Amino acid sequence: MSHSQNSNRPLEIFGLKSDLIHPGDDIFSKIKVAFSRADVFPKDSDIFVIAESALATAENRVAHLSTIQPSAKALEFEKLYQIDAREAELVIRESDVIFGGVFGVLLTLKNGLLCPNAGIDNSNAPNDCVILYPENPTKSAREIAKFILDEFGVSVGVIVADSRTQPLRLGCTGVAIGAAGFLATVDKRGETDLFGRPLSVTRVAVADNLASAAEAVMGESNESTPFALIRNANAVFDSEAFGITTISPEECMYWGVLSKSEKEP
Amino acid sequence: MSHSQNSNRPLEIFGLKSDLIHPGDDIFSKIKVAFSRADVFPKDSDIFVIAESALATAENRVAHLSTIQPSAKALEFEKLYQIDAREAELVIRESDVIFGGVFGVLLTLKNGLLCPNAGIDNSNAPNDCVILYPENPTKSAREIAKFILDEFGVSVGVIVADSRTQPLRLGCTGVAIGAAGFLATVDKRGETDLFGRPLSVTRVAVADNLASAAEAVMGESNESTPFALIRNANAVFDSEAFGITTISPEECMYWGVLSKSEKEP
Repeated sequence: MSHSQNSNRPLEIFGLKSDLIHPGDDIFSKIKVAFSRADVFPKDSDIFVIAESALATAENRVAHLSTIQPSAKALEFEKLYQIDAREAELVIRESDVIFGGVFGVLLTLKNGLLCPNAGIDNSNAPNDCVILYPENPTKSAREIAKFILDEFGVSVGVIVADSRTQPLRLGCTGVAIGAAGFLATVDKRGETDLFGRPLSVTRVAVADNLASAAEAVMGESNESTPFALIRNANAVFDSEAFGITTISPEECMYWGVLSKSEKEP
Repeated sequence: MSHSQNSNRPLEIFGLKSDLIHPGDDIFSKIKVAFSRADVFPKDSDIFVIAESALATAENRVAHLSTIQPSAKALEFEKLYQIDAREAELVIRESDVIFGGVFGVLLTLKNGLLCPNAGIDNSNAPNDCVILYPENPTKSAREIAKFILDEFGVSVGVIVADSRTQPLRLGCTGVAIGAAGFLATVDKRGETDLFGRPLSVTRVAVADNLASAAEAVMGESNESTPFALIRNANAVFDSEAFGITTISPEECMYWGVLSKSEKEP
């Protein structure tokens, strides 16, 4: 494990454009072309960020709504939450858990991560199609890290990035749904504050901070910037590290408060 | 209003160190010294980020726990959530709303923003003290923008940054609790995806993404980097713009799902 040694240099984030990614495209080839076009190449301890929709499209994770037969439960979700029953059916099939819904959205766990609609997205998909979540974002992150090592001879971290709303706030921020090559969460419990006392903020979600940083250059619409490269990130690199750490509803402040708020004094 | 015109240059984030900030210190002077020491100076359309704890300390928003007399309700919170009754008393006084609690934390609105314990923080505060939230973070952000304009002749955006956990995820990410000089949230509802269809992600929380990006260089512990400067951010600058946009519990997916999850099919 090594910390990057660049405390005096700025953190830098390069947006890397791509032409349109079609279902089944070779993502490694798209990444290679994007580096060449931007004339920016990865170095050791950079972090490469890929938008989940680009990865999922290349992985052929595209579903045609016209082929989906909604179940009784999907039709019930359509009535309750005004979500297309065929999309609801896909959410049922794709999710680990459905916590419930609001207008247009089912809140789910997918691969253990909290996300709306099991990560199913109907923007940036061809007509009548929706893009499912990447099959296994962290596995793909590890494969991309290996591709970059083989192709460029450098060891990088990789983040698969998505967008998420935060409680009671307008707008989406970046979130990491897959990671490899660095510690996605850094534990600061042994460290002290400016006055030598234990910290109250004890863990930093490094991967989520960097996914948000990358979103500032990647865009959400027809901007065609599905990749970013982050340099001089204050991350702990470890080629064996992978994955995103989650917590259970029992450990979550929001769950804890909101699911028992009627019991308050 | 103007977009920054730097799409080919990387986004850059400089961490700016400071010596210890004491209650009542002149924050403008600390900022000026930090720029000089780093030999990094603001340019037009940069975004300056300040940690809320540094701002609050300079604003003398420090409370001595030994002087606080807990009310009956504070003592009840202590019993229910194992939170120091004097700190609970401060949370009661400082918050607009208390939604409830879990072990060690009350979930509150403060100045309309969701935060744990009304933003009261007991790290990086002198002994027996806690640091309250800045009095009015967006007002302070506007004052800092004006100071930087007066001192350096350039027009920048300013973010007052804090940390927050996200639902079911381990670790904190950056969040903006005050903003000035740029649009904290960008509305993409008029834009289309790669296939010309309306976007499903319609608003981007630019200020939160940039606060998270800055947290990647600022640190949470005894790292003494309370300021950051972001260059080439893809933000919409407007010297008249200020504030953070929130949504009501009725508009929030998490609130909607978690507070009625027993009604699910």
